[in-house]
Amino acid sequence: MHFSSEQRLDGGVLERDFTLGGIPGTLWTPEPAPNPTAAPTPLILLGHPGDLGRMRPRLLGRAAQAAADGFATATIELPGAGERPRLPALERARTELRRTMQAGETVGPDVIDALVLPLVDAAVPEWQAVLDALLALPGLGGPVGFSGGVIAVVTRLAVVEPRLTAAVLFAGSFVPAATLAEARRVTVPLHVLLQWDDAGNDRQASLDLFDAFGSAEKTLTANLGGHTGVPQHAGDAAAAFFRRHLR
Amino acid sequence: MHFSSEQRLDGGVLERDFTLGGIPGTLWTPEPAPNPTAAPTPLILLGHPGDLGRMRPRLLGRAAQAAADGFATATIELPGAGERPRLPALERARTELRRTMQAGETVGPDVIDALVLPLVDAAVPEWQAVLDALLALPGLGGPVGFSGGVIAVVTRLAVVEPRLTAAVLFAGSFVPAATLAEARRVTVPLHVLLQWDDAGNDRQASLDLFDAFGSAEKTLTANLGGHTGVPQHAGDAAAAFFRRHLR
Repeated sequence: MHFSSEQRLDGGVLERDFTLGGIPGTLWTPEPAPNPTAAPTPLILLGHPGDLGRMRPRLLGRAAQAAADGFATATIELPGAGERPRLPALERARTELRRTMQAGETVGPDVIDALVLPLVDAAVPEWQAVLDALLALPGLGGPVGFSGGVIAVVTRLAVVEPRLTAAVLFAGSFVPAATLAEARRVTVPLHVLLQWDDAGNDRQASLDLFDAFGSAEKTLTANLGGHTGVPQHAGDAAAAFFRRHLR
Repeated sequence: MHFSSEQRLDGGVLERDFTLGGIPGTLWTPEPAPNPTAAPTPLILLGHPGDLGRMRPRLLGRAAQAAADGFATATIELPGAGERPRLPALERARTELRRTMQAGETVGPDVIDALVLPLVDAAVPEWQAVLDALLALPGLGGPVGFSGGVIAVVTRLAVVEPRLTAAVLFAGSFVPAATLAEARRVTVPLHVLLQWDDAGNDRQASLDLFDAFGSAEKTLTANLGGHTGVPQHAGDAAAAFFRRHLR
């Protein structure tokens, strides 16, 4: 893990950009750093739909909230997104998705599988590698949360990664049938945000996915509004979920 | 309004039983009473499915939470329930409901209408009369919330009673088609609790009702578990909703 920049942000956050095996990412930690002899700082991995440059303002808000709660946060660029090399299979799938939507056709299961499953296979080992590197840093450790991002990626990670202890999911990305099946094997506590009027999201598919998760503790919070209209109080409730499970 | 008893409970709550025109009820206020020259204490009306004696322990918990937040709470017995005279039409509808359920038949719209609509017509003017009397008491005033109870009653009250400014609904009671239509005229902020595995509740009907409410701000919070298994954090989120809207 190579740190390439470091800056102190308003509100008590230290931001450090890094690369790990060619994957760019950012780590945000509370400032001043907690006493190293105290309990290690819990970590929340911040998911997003790809393109870190575009997503940074929204990620910063989530990082600042987490830092105020005493948590570190980190994110990495998704495979094939932002400044990273394109993945030919993903590019073909995206071209097909655009064609389907421009033609006003329904986005079928084949298109969804082609778009999401290669991303899951590529992204999950990367999240695990960055988790290894982050938890080796002084002061970081303890329970790990995951927040947002591509639902199929988080679902797979929750199944294969025992260090993950709680996750906030944001309904709104395509869900392959394989993910729905995988969801039954997820057991960590979940907090699922659903925007009731999200034009790009199939509401019934989100409800079916919530129903499928095997977790004994899961909460669905639905609010009026579109994809980017999550109200402040819903963000507060998600933060309260992490405080319950990561402290 | 005639007060018949008064006792101080642990945790800073004054409990006073009252009757108003033959309707028994209870008022809980924070202790010590706020400075009378300060802003008046907001009031939350506590709904329930009927039979105050049986419901009192659960109502007490909600009253104590509200008092800790600086709110008064009050409840009254439902028409035809507890110690109040039976209502023949309601009794006939309940007999028919029991017969239907024991025969394993689906509870149809006629049974639901007969069971709920007379209750709405009888209960709503009573809630309004008790609200008149409560808001005339020294120190009480300001915004009024409603929490729980029979959904059709709260929906009607939210349409006809301008003093109501926010409501927490607990999905799980039968919803007549007339209530679904009335829901579109509700405009106050709503916080709807749904227990995902409530055996006595039609999940899809609850989702349809949430969708129908005309309110510009509405939140659905669904948690795993049966009707009485609402987790502590869901109660906390409902309390936070009232803090946002009644303070």
